[in-house]
Amino acid sequence: MTPQTGSRQRILDTASELFHTRSYDAVGIALVCDQAKVSKGSFFHFFGSKRDLALAVMDQFQERIDETLVAKAFSSKLPPMERLDRFVKELYAFQKGQTDKFGHMPGCPFGNLAMEQATQDEVLRKKVDGCLRSLAHHIRVAISEAVRSETFPPVDEAATAEAMLGYLEGIQLLAKARNDPGLIRRLGPAVNSIRVPRKA
Amino acid sequence: MTPQTGSRQRILDTASELFHTRSYDAVGIALVCDQAKVSKGSFFHFFGSKRDLALAVMDQFQERIDETLVAKAFSSKLPPMERLDRFVKELYAFQKGQTDKFGHMPGCPFGNLAMEQATQDEVLRKKVDGCLRSLAHHIRVAISEAVRSETFPPVDEAATAEAMLGYLEGIQLLAKARNDPGLIRRLGPAVNSIRVPRKA
Repeated sequence: MTPQTGSRQRILDTASELFHTRSYDAVGIALVCDQAKVSKGSFFHFFGSKRDLALAVMDQFQERIDETLVAKAFSSKLPPMERLDRFVKELYAFQKGQTDKFGHMPGCPFGNLAMEQATQDEVLRKKVDGCLRSLAHHIRVAISEAVRSETFPPVDEAATAEAMLGYLEGIQLLAKARNDPGLIRRLGPAVNSIRVPRKA
Repeated sequence: MTPQTGSRQRILDTASELFHTRSYDAVGIALVCDQAKVSKGSFFHFFGSKRDLALAVMDQFQERIDETLVAKAFSSKLPPMERLDRFVKELYAFQKGQTDKFGHMPGCPFGNLAMEQATQDEVLRKKVDGCLRSLAHHIRVAISEAVRSETFPPVDEAATAEAMLGYLEGIQLLAKARNDPGLIRRLGPAVNSIRVPRKA
């Protein structure tokens, strides 16, 4: 790693943690530079704006979630509906670990940015919408396999996948409001009960 | 209405709209005073801080939601599980109206503040947690009636009510990320499919 890639990565990792554990608006470029130990000049060498930084942070979150939670849960080696149970377990473990580390449950980084910025920044809204659609896609693949193998009833597969993702986002929201990741463990398994019927 | 109550109400209504359509952090006291046409002196006569204002805004949101969406949907005159269908319709109509007015779907005011502030302000976190629990209570009453009348299977009633509220929050989150209230109409009715079994 060259010193320059080191600085860029430090900025990204610092901003990821700050945006996730506080909020986007609450974290200025000066704070990121201070905690990442880089100058503002160095920051603007790598990122044109705070929004550009946020876009890169969301890309990194997506890559890391794909490499960890998604890779573990949505493995084609698992029976399709067990993937959702595994995803719930991974979500709980992640949020529990973050809560133990920071004292507060930070919730989903995509959901947080959507709720804070979707009405205010169309570029960030489209970015998180894409990240959420990517998660829904993994669920949809599992549902489609389960329907084909007749381990899940025939449903509107795309809509049921979105409904299930919505549910997982929503119980993370309630758990964040309560600062209790245990709610994810208690309510999460019911994700498998959700069905959106095919249109008549 | 005296001129003083007029000023307090103007501050509240202005802040409600600004917090809801932007975010809490994005809206400063100066902007609220400017748009409400009150002086900062007048503001601090009524509210000790921006957080005090936010607490009063959440109280007002809760009162208005109770008087409108909740009163229409959770009427004891409706069969219990039809109340949830009606609540979905009211949520959709509200978010559609807001989207048509502002160009962006603002989502749930409680969910927004939870996602933005729950890690940062313990007083605001507890406030929105209380508002969300109040909504879950209305759902729980409906479920309990439906279970007693055998129109809904025996479930963990409190957990199923929370799961259903989580679902409705989550689909509003996805709809906000997509800026498409139609998602609430499409996915909302599936709230009735959610079941959290009683603990063994």
